[in-house]
Amino acid sequence: MTESPIDLTQDAARLTAQLVDFASESGTEKPLADAIETALRALPHLTVDRYGNNVVARTNLGHAERVVLAGHIDTVPIAENVPSRLDENGVLWGCGTCDMKSGVALQLRIAATVPAPNRDLTFIFYDNEEVAADLNGLKHVSEAHPEWLEGDFAVLLEPTDGQVEGGCQGTLRVLLRTKGERAHSARGWMGANAIHTAAPILARLASYEPRYPVIDGLEYREGLNAVRISGGVAGNVIPDECVVSVNFRYAPDRTEEEAIAHVHEVFADCGVEEFVVDDHSPGALPGLSHPAAAAFIEAVGGTPQPKYGWTDVSRFSALGVPAVNYGPGNPHLAHRRDERVEIAKILAGEERLRAWLAE
Amino acid sequence: MTESPIDLTQDAARLTAQLVDFASESGTEKPLADAIETALRALPHLTVDRYGNNVVARTNLGHAERVVLAGHIDTVPIAENVPSRLDENGVLWGCGTCDMKSGVALQLRIAATVPAPNRDLTFIFYDNEEVAADLNGLKHVSEAHPEWLEGDFAVLLEPTDGQVEGGCQGTLRVLLRTKGERAHSARGWMGANAIHTAAPILARLASYEPRYPVIDGLEYREGLNAVRISGGVAGNVIPDECVVSVNFRYAPDRTEEEAIAHVHEVFADCGVEEFVVDDHSPGALPGLSHPAAAAFIEAVGGTPQPKYGWTDVSRFSALGVPAVNYGPGNPHLAHRRDERVEIAKILAGEERLRAWLAE
Repeated sequence: MTESPIDLTQDAARLTAQLVDFASESGTEKPLADAIETALRALPHLTVDRYGNNVVARTNLGHAERVVLAGHIDTVPIAENVPSRLDENGVLWGCGTCDMKSGVALQLRIAATVPAPNRDLTFIFYDNEEVAADLNGLKHVSEAHPEWLEGDFAVLLEPTDGQVEGGCQGTLRVLLRTKGERAHSARGWMGANAIHTAAPILARLASYEPRYPVIDGLEYREGLNAVRISGGVAGNVIPDECVVSVNFRYAPDRTEEEAIAHVHEVFADCGVEEFVVDDHSPGALPGLSHPAAAAFIEAVGGTPQPKYGWTDVSRFSALGVPAVNYGPGNPHLAHRRDERVEIAKILAGEERLRAWLAE
Repeated sequence: MTESPIDLTQDAARLTAQLVDFASESGTEKPLADAIETALRALPHLTVDRYGNNVVARTNLGHAERVVLAGHIDTVPIAENVPSRLDENGVLWGCGTCDMKSGVALQLRIAATVPAPNRDLTFIFYDNEEVAADLNGLKHVSEAHPEWLEGDFAVLLEPTDGQVEGGCQGTLRVLLRTKGERAHSARGWMGANAIHTAAPILARLASYEPRYPVIDGLEYREGLNAVRISGGVAGNVIPDECVVSVNFRYAPDRTEEEAIAHVHEVFADCGVEEFVVDDHSPGALPGLSHPAAAAFIEAVGGTPQPKYGWTDVSRFSALGVPAVNYGPGNPHLAHRRDERVEIAKILAGEERLRAWLAE
């Protein structure tokens, strides 16, 4: 892993490669946050603040409008895909290429190369986005220093394949626990098998029919999936507990409460002994009719799309800041061993953002 | 720990106490094996062989029938329950009292006091029964000197509370693996959920109807149970693998191959991608219709019971020797801190075996 100082004079594509090689799995972001802070403090037109491993840099030019560019600096666990590799077709491969060090590279390049923007700018770099919501750096900043997030409009540089994606779906994780009674497996009839009791839960998941609702002209896609299952005591013991962790991704027309009620109802008669909400982040309505959003869409072009994944736009949404997702990566390639991004898309993104923000 | 020479002139109850005080946790049996070998070599009617810490003694009287009496000399770890203690109710407390030094005492007393038996006798004392199957002394003897185990009928003096327990069930553990394709759970439709794919496996387990076959008048009880399940990558990833570990306890009328074929068939159309036999020990037929077994049952009385758990009788069975379990200890007290045995049961066992084997 290369942890040399970050060089903001290279183009966003080369900078992406440097950031990918600077490994920063969730929980290990400190060295990268340090390097970003150091690089930004060298830029005289920015005021830099830090909270934990979150770095915020701002211009203070007195413009009527302020735009926020935000991105997380952590990645999912590396899967033998670091350091990065640039192939002969101009595709950069590696963990975080798509989600979302190419977006972070755009933020850093705009910060370094647009010293006199046409709007005041806020750059937010935060940690722990790929893990539990409790750890999320943008959440911590929004609670400790909500004024740092203030703005008229926010762009989160999550992978969207260069399209503007409005709003985001909510994500709810629930632990469904079944219970049984231990016994030696040679006399299984003396116990009750909690793994067998989980059969209707898996059957319900396998047959679940998700909704695809249309909101502000955008079609969302819900989904309900088991993301983990565990049960078992020893190779000769009837297990007395099984836990299925399910993840419900829901369209932003459901509230948090409605989402929980729906999951409750889906598994109502499936033998669930305990129902525990493990993690929950609500969705954000797209809000594409806001003037700041409309101006941005006109500047970068294309047709806005719905955002399926949950993103931190919902934190801006909760603070009254309309927000969209816009980044060079293809979201379908996030979190995969073969994660990658096209160099051309990174460079196009840098150019469009500069066209929008430079005088 | 008292490691004085073993005195075979005392009754089986006092001898049990001496054997318990002669500590022999698995792996530390050598001094006890030495003492047993020395005591047996002093008996002119026996031929004594040794292999590792396993001692085998035989009469060679030219009888038409040969009976094997076998027992392991190791114990589970001592739990502040050695030396032994005889209470005022005639109960002997201590590690190994039940499992199975009271059984070993019966073997030694018959060896010492029945010099002219009505059938030829083989006494087997072996080590490492309480630990991994690979270390088992009876296994080692059966591989190196299978002829030492020859006989028409075998009695394993494991605790059965003075009941005859016929044969034993087999135990087969299989890993059933389902496969899928990882994707971000926000876009679940891009992947394939391996936990959902396991739904038919759990449904099949939940609805499985076990056989209760009657063999030689004993009703066995089969069982097919999940003993472990695991799957999941992260809270936001569609899992690409799920593994269900199932334990099939099967009656001794199935061979090893038939047991595997049955489990294969049960899950034939359940989406199993990989089927791996993880652990397998075959069952043993009770063989109660054999004349030597019938004579034994008549001599010791009671109604034979099936053995649900797996025991070393299956090693005799594999060599074509029908075998039963019969010992004075209560099997529910084995491996406990408060392990104990009633003196009266030990003495009754000695008397019954002598009635069966003495001219």
